[in-house]
Amino acid sequence: MLLTSRQNEKVKAFIKLSASSKQRRARKMFTLEGARLCFDAVKSDCIISEVFYTQKALEQYQTYLIPILERAKNAFEITQPIADAMADTKTTQGVFAIVEMQENPTAIDYTKKYIALENIQNPANLGAIARTASAMGIYGMIVNGGCDIYTPQAQRSAMGALLRLPVIEVGDMVETIKHCNEKGMQTIASVARNNAVPVTQVAFQENSVLVIGNEGNGLSDSCIKSCTIQTTIPMDDKTESLNAANAAAILLWEMVRLGR
Amino acid sequence: MLLTSRQNEKVKAFIKLSASSKQRRARKMFTLEGARLCFDAVKSDCIISEVFYTQKALEQYQTYLIPILERAKNAFEITQPIADAMADTKTTQGVFAIVEMQENPTAIDYTKKYIALENIQNPANLGAIARTASAMGIYGMIVNGGCDIYTPQAQRSAMGALLRLPVIEVGDMVETIKHCNEKGMQTIASVARNNAVPVTQVAFQENSVLVIGNEGNGLSDSCIKSCTIQTTIPMDDKTESLNAANAAAILLWEMVRLGR
Repeated sequence: MLLTSRQNEKVKAFIKLSASSKQRRARKMFTLEGARLCFDAVKSDCIISEVFYTQKALEQYQTYLIPILERAKNAFEITQPIADAMADTKTTQGVFAIVEMQENPTAIDYTKKYIALENIQNPANLGAIARTASAMGIYGMIVNGGCDIYTPQAQRSAMGALLRLPVIEVGDMVETIKHCNEKGMQTIASVARNNAVPVTQVAFQENSVLVIGNEGNGLSDSCIKSCTIQTTIPMDDKTESLNAANAAAILLWEMVRLGR
Repeated sequence: MLLTSRQNEKVKAFIKLSASSKQRRARKMFTLEGARLCFDAVKSDCIISEVFYTQKALEQYQTYLIPILERAKNAFEITQPIADAMADTKTTQGVFAIVEMQENPTAIDYTKKYIALENIQNPANLGAIARTASAMGIYGMIVNGGCDIYTPQAQRSAMGALLRLPVIEVGDMVETIKHCNEKGMQTIASVARNNAVPVTQVAFQENSVLVIGNEGNGLSDSCIKSCTIQTTIPMDDKTESLNAANAAAILLWEMVRLGR
């Protein structure tokens, strides 16, 4: 079926889902844009409710699109103006999907490595951190507040990592950290303080949680206090700082560096 | 003097400079937005040709604004609608400056550490890499093609680092790398290949250049071949990759990690 009107119910529903976290939570669905990202959803065994594609995309991204079309419950061809209306990017590839949210775990595996994000605001940062965490073999992600992991920009910037990593959404980060402490996990707060342990001197345990704060303010005091270790990245000039995703990349690397 | 019209020549000139790399190169000037960033320009001894501020900004960011006003050749108060028109951000702080480009060095100091970027496209990545390089005490940056370092987004994401780091713009990266080799520098290509040297096994020299490629395609083959070492970040699953800024962060950290 070829969709040609912006007033089409399917098109309108996609745009609403893309724009609204509330809609996504209510329908338990989210959107993806891009041939490779929609293909990643297939590889990650996501349930693909709908796929939308332009004729041009079908020619250009066949290897990605064929398995997506095989898996999707419904498929719609769209015109280029409809693709532009649906797109969150400036130059769209013309491939979109509506995907069912997977049942994310609510329990932490206390024998594994996690990254926890307190109130991260920027979806591009969230996505980049998920991508690095996944590449480093981190087991899962814990989030508390901040931006929605199903935001199109976060999903795009994660390059499929948010479809692979189990993400646990918690209400109270301090309580979660205390719980992890009780279960024998190492909880590591990332701070920008001279008196914290340089990350090169942290003996990382196999089961640990790296806790990263928000872009503007860093971690809350209560989070910092509840962690078993406060660590920092030694820098040349103490007045400088790193962006949240870059700091997370260095700390995640240090968590797994040994033996590589 | 209070500027109230978008048609004012000063306002129009600022907006043009902000939007156009060509304008910036022709006038040898660029724009900055944000109280802290304009203050960083003062700290970095930049010549500030013009500063624009709202009444609200004067109250809210006094500590930053006073030294800026003392240093600026010309100062203009603007109304909030003018600030919104000049802004590159969604919610502007209402502080803007036009800054003269500093005479950047054209020669590399062969005894120091550099980061080189081949054709980086995303200004936010460029800025984040500059910020991390500066925090790691890297001496300077070499760029070849890619996005303009004076783009407002690059400057903002660099948080002042692009005002501090000497940036050398070169026409031919391969020639530059070969020249560095001849001068005894270690040149290190960042690649995503299994047969490259794991970064943990690179013995970094004091004088070295880390060469990072473009977001979509990585480094060009000719750049890779001209480097003395090809290195990679060992990852769990070889099909995964990192974003350019996060990969750069880990490699820059490894360059200076020893002894920290």
